[in-house]
Amino acid sequence: MGKDQWPHRVAIVGLGLIGGSLALAIRRAHPGIELVGVDCDEDALAKALKCGAIAWGTQRLEEGVARAQLVVLATPVSAILELLPRLYPLIAEGTIVTDTGSTKRRIFELAERVLPQSFIGGHPMAGSERRGFEAARADLFEGTVYVLTPGSGRPDGLARRLANFLETLGVRTLFMTPERHDRIVAFTSHLPQLLSIMLGSQLSRKAEGDPTYLELIAGGTSDWLRIASSPYEIWRDVFVTNADEVEPLIRELAQGLEALCGSRLAERLEVEFRRARQLRTRLGR
Amino acid sequence: MGKDQWPHRVAIVGLGLIGGSLALAIRRAHPGIELVGVDCDEDALAKALKCGAIAWGTQRLEEGVARAQLVVLATPVSAILELLPRLYPLIAEGTIVTDTGSTKRRIFELAERVLPQSFIGGHPMAGSERRGFEAARADLFEGTVYVLTPGSGRPDGLARRLANFLETLGVRTLFMTPERHDRIVAFTSHLPQLLSIMLGSQLSRKAEGDPTYLELIAGGTSDWLRIASSPYEIWRDVFVTNADEVEPLIRELAQGLEALCGSRLAERLEVEFRRARQLRTRLGR
Repeated sequence: MGKDQWPHRVAIVGLGLIGGSLALAIRRAHPGIELVGVDCDEDALAKALKCGAIAWGTQRLEEGVARAQLVVLATPVSAILELLPRLYPLIAEGTIVTDTGSTKRRIFELAERVLPQSFIGGHPMAGSERRGFEAARADLFEGTVYVLTPGSGRPDGLARRLANFLETLGVRTLFMTPERHDRIVAFTSHLPQLLSIMLGSQLSRKAEGDPTYLELIAGGTSDWLRIASSPYEIWRDVFVTNADEVEPLIRELAQGLEALCGSRLAERLEVEFRRARQLRTRLGR
Repeated sequence: MGKDQWPHRVAIVGLGLIGGSLALAIRRAHPGIELVGVDCDEDALAKALKCGAIAWGTQRLEEGVARAQLVVLATPVSAILELLPRLYPLIAEGTIVTDTGSTKRRIFELAERVLPQSFIGGHPMAGSERRGFEAARADLFEGTVYVLTPGSGRPDGLARRLANFLETLGVRTLFMTPERHDRIVAFTSHLPQLLSIMLGSQLSRKAEGDPTYLELIAGGTSDWLRIASSPYEIWRDVFVTNADEVEPLIRELAQGLEALCGSRLAERLEVEFRRARQLRTRLGR
């Protein structure tokens, strides 16, 4: 790796599913980069070190991010919001700070104030209902979309540099404003998650009274329920920081559901089925 | 296969995903059984014949079911309701007629009148968003639950005989009344299907205005949307014949969704997340 290549050292803060997978992907694509892991959980550091995902690890933020050219905050959103104000005195000039949080507006608003010129928000559109470094995989992001959210929605030099690096990991980067990101994922990710949780919760209650409910779950429904076991701790932050985008969608759906009832349910559904099928064609699958 | 073994000849009416898979499963487990395919679609008959799933095929119901000890109606529910009244003069004494329809009450009520003593409703809890003989697989039902719905909910001699045979195909049979079946699947199958359709339909509409919506679909959501491409023709019958069980569930869900909104969405969701996670434990996955 030439001296002019960027970055030489990357610090990843939070070695869970996302941070761990990013470390593994970077190590695989760029064995020459010095990868530093920062995590308050000693166990996660030990695991990442043992399998060579990081060169070294520390529980001390200041130690981990010093002299890193790229700092990735891969913790839940609330922890990102706590970490951001601490970074400014700790990082070298020219360091890029990014994050992998599932919502982008609140993080962007804070970073604008505490890390001007250094921060580009990001969101890899990959994940799993599992969590922790145990679930990390070098190929988790391969072929997926990685959203970057500069305030303008358009890449400047900083964002372009980060995007070029991320694309060497096999992702396709996409630029948009933090607002636009949050609006879209409210529909494509947060609402489906919420519905899975609501169904999972109701099914759990019904199964308490009658376990036969669990025997009659067809294949499609069980795919659906898979994400219902996602941890609340991660999702709480998502719903706290994006409630104003998610709530109108919940109301709209609730009204759409009410409107189906009354009479001729099957006929009312016909147009919805037709439109849903167009989606498959659109997605090309 | 001994002379005392039952059945020697099986007629399967409807060689789509379910009927085709049943034919392949029977042929694999019991090469000695004479399998007859009945389908109005010549193409489906030709395909099933070509791969040896059936011994012979016919478009004429009376020809296909004559001298069969077991007749399986594997068409959409509306076609089952049309076929049932025609069968009585066509079948031999002692023949068992069963079906694979997704709802059981309406079929049972009709069969009680037109095929007393011969009919046991059934519903294999397996499927796919795909359709047609092309999608059929010998192992589709392996390890899955196969519900049988005698009117009393308890097996008599007829139901026991059918269950014993089905279990040789690798399924686990479960007996319940048609009413109980329809109540449970309204929740475990029809409501999730309807939600997938509603989400898929809304996403399709949003993507029309802004294709970026399609780029930001995370893994969990795309599993979810898979069943949104299921054919309306099959599901129409389900919603026609089970609207009175499904509608109260739709209303209940709509009210639950409305109740989440207002303030503290994330906090309100906590109890739902916890309950949904218990489900995973209950399911033992």
